[in-house]
Amino acid sequence: MTAKPEILKLTQVTNSRLFHIEAMDLRFSNGVERRYERLRTGGLGAVMIVAINEQDEVLLIREYAAGLEDYVLTLPKGLIDPGEDMMTAANRELQEEAGFAARQLSHVRQLTAAPNYMGHRLEVILARDLYPSKLEGDEPEPLEVIPWPMSRLPELFTQAAFSEGRAIAALCLVQQLQTRVEPPLVSRETASI
Amino acid sequence: MTAKPEILKLTQVTNSRLFHIEAMDLRFSNGVERRYERLRTGGLGAVMIVAINEQDEVLLIREYAAGLEDYVLTLPKGLIDPGEDMMTAANRELQEEAGFAARQLSHVRQLTAAPNYMGHRLEVILARDLYPSKLEGDEPEPLEVIPWPMSRLPELFTQAAFSEGRAIAALCLVQQLQTRVEPPLVSRETASI
Repeated sequence: MTAKPEILKLTQVTNSRLFHIEAMDLRFSNGVERRYERLRTGGLGAVMIVAINEQDEVLLIREYAAGLEDYVLTLPKGLIDPGEDMMTAANRELQEEAGFAARQLSHVRQLTAAPNYMGHRLEVILARDLYPSKLEGDEPEPLEVIPWPMSRLPELFTQAAFSEGRAIAALCLVQQLQTRVEPPLVSRETASI
Repeated sequence: MTAKPEILKLTQVTNSRLFHIEAMDLRFSNGVERRYERLRTGGLGAVMIVAINEQDEVLLIREYAAGLEDYVLTLPKGLIDPGEDMMTAANRELQEEAGFAARQLSHVRQLTAAPNYMGHRLEVILARDLYPSKLEGDEPEPLEVIPWPMSRLPELFTQAAFSEGRAIAALCLVQQLQTRVEPPLVSRETASI
């Protein structure tokens, strides 16, 4: 295991309303020195919600993404507010963005977006046992909610509009969990022994 | 389908060596106006390489991620340089970061990192038929290369160090492709008919 580089200096480079850019002077264990830039993260992180209804459909949302200048398909997500834990934040965002609340919430795993230059962390939360419940969010327009069968994920993953790596990863991870908890397949022949 | 918001104005907010922050004044089709901030992307995009060897192992790299201030496990990746197409860039990055070149390269799909506030696009490239070939990259220290069996992806996806959403997504997509091209399973009983 290589020792972590030594952080020689952190310098605030520039700020905007949303972004905080920091320079990081590093000395690697082999003596090489480098300056990296990164987006500093304040805040408590974010949540992304895989909400699955009784028909085994996942609730997708269609929203405008300023980075791509287009509407995209993705999963409900948002920042954890001060005073909230991740489950509370997930249930609030689900109500704001998809119009549902969940009686069952469980943590799947933490994902990062671009760890080389961003510290942003996102918690994937699986939401089950849904019931209609709407909270007002800060969306400029109502989001379209699209229930998508979990059995048709391979088709979803080929859609150009469903491009967010963390959303594809979140659904893969949940699918993997579901495969694991199902009882092993037993053929009729074996079962009858 | 909702009409896209009208872009009223784009304003350059601030710049650093690596980042370009832009404000975007939008009017949504319902009349609501909002100012969003986003990272502007220059350049030609980036590539992420799923390189699979003859033992059906994917080549992971272990590198320092400044955003997380820690070493992470991820896939080889990098920017497309001027004059390169995505396949050339993928084969160069693979040689720089993993010490292998590929005789077979194919495009899997485009992924985004955080489309709400970043325009960054990443092309996932599947690399097969590998042979040893090393190019000097700009890494401050040699990267550790870790071959990981494709049959053990579920275990990889639980590793805290393998957290990058786009890398998990890339491996899921390749796994899905591999499942698709394999001949359907035929039981002995059916085959003997």
